[in-house]
Amino acid sequence: MRVLGIDPGLRNMGWGVIEVDGSRMRHLGNGVCKSEGKDLSLRLLSLHRQLSEVVREYQPDTAAVEQTFVNKDGAGTLKLGQARGIALLVPAQAGLEIGEYAPNKVKKTIVGVGHAAKEQIQHMVKLQLPGVVLNGPDAADALAIAMCHAHYTRSTRVWEKAKEAANG
Amino acid sequence: MRVLGIDPGLRNMGWGVIEVDGSRMRHLGNGVCKSEGKDLSLRLLSLHRQLSEVVREYQPDTAAVEQTFVNKDGAGTLKLGQARGIALLVPAQAGLEIGEYAPNKVKKTIVGVGHAAKEQIQHMVKLQLPGVVLNGPDAADALAIAMCHAHYTRSTRVWEKAKEAANG
Repeated sequence: MRVLGIDPGLRNMGWGVIEVDGSRMRHLGNGVCKSEGKDLSLRLLSLHRQLSEVVREYQPDTAAVEQTFVNKDGAGTLKLGQARGIALLVPAQAGLEIGEYAPNKVKKTIVGVGHAAKEQIQHMVKLQLPGVVLNGPDAADALAIAMCHAHYTRSTRVWEKAKEAANG
Repeated sequence: MRVLGIDPGLRNMGWGVIEVDGSRMRHLGNGVCKSEGKDLSLRLLSLHRQLSEVVREYQPDTAAVEQTFVNKDGAGTLKLGQARGIALLVPAQAGLEIGEYAPNKVKKTIVGVGHAAKEQIQHMVKLQLPGVVLNGPDAADALAIAMCHAHYTRSTRVWEKAKEAANG
């Protein structure tokens, strides 16, 4: 199963793809879509194009997008929301199911604590995906989101199999 | 010149298209894209499909999207932002220049005052687009946004022509 993780942002949108086979995970790619263009609509268009290209290249089976932290900065929330609209649209256009995870849930799943520092996340991502070269913190976060999604998807599948076995 | 106006919203996204010839305006169509689907990504996908269909059908030359009112409700701002990302992406994908206008600017341009009631906007839209049948308040707002964009685009063109004449 191929999992695409997306860390949404208007300026930098991190992405990471892993291959999951049972409890084994393998890194396939990671990077950052940087929005280009003089105004907002062109920046969103540029993010849409780059992220669509990632989906075409890696053909993921499922995707996960980080849930956005809503703060008191309304203008910042609005910007992030616009970028997040694109982050959700692209995998939906490819027919993928999309998981959404709060930052704290991702951290807790990957590092073990909800308030882990960026460095800790990068450390755990490197530990679980040997040989990975991280293209910056946003790409590392995106890989962590993909790993978190793999974890919960696997748990659900194991659970459903156990239920089937119990019922059958 | 064909102008598409969009009033962004996650549940209901209003749209309106007018034909502008000098100071004359004619109504071509208006409606509301209603988001369908059990989760956010499917709702955004459904909005993207419906709005893309409007662009394909009416082939506008330019578009305008209402600037979102940022308030203290962070979750609401985020939802609106995600829908607004789609509202900006669709015309950008069609290669259109996109104008953005604050609600008060639209009201002031169409009604004459910045704090006009919905009914006043609908009244002025009907007055300037004789025979129009409005598909609800969101569609009326979208037509008002298109009319506002036509006004400012025309002003800019008249000004540029005058400047050219003065320089030439």
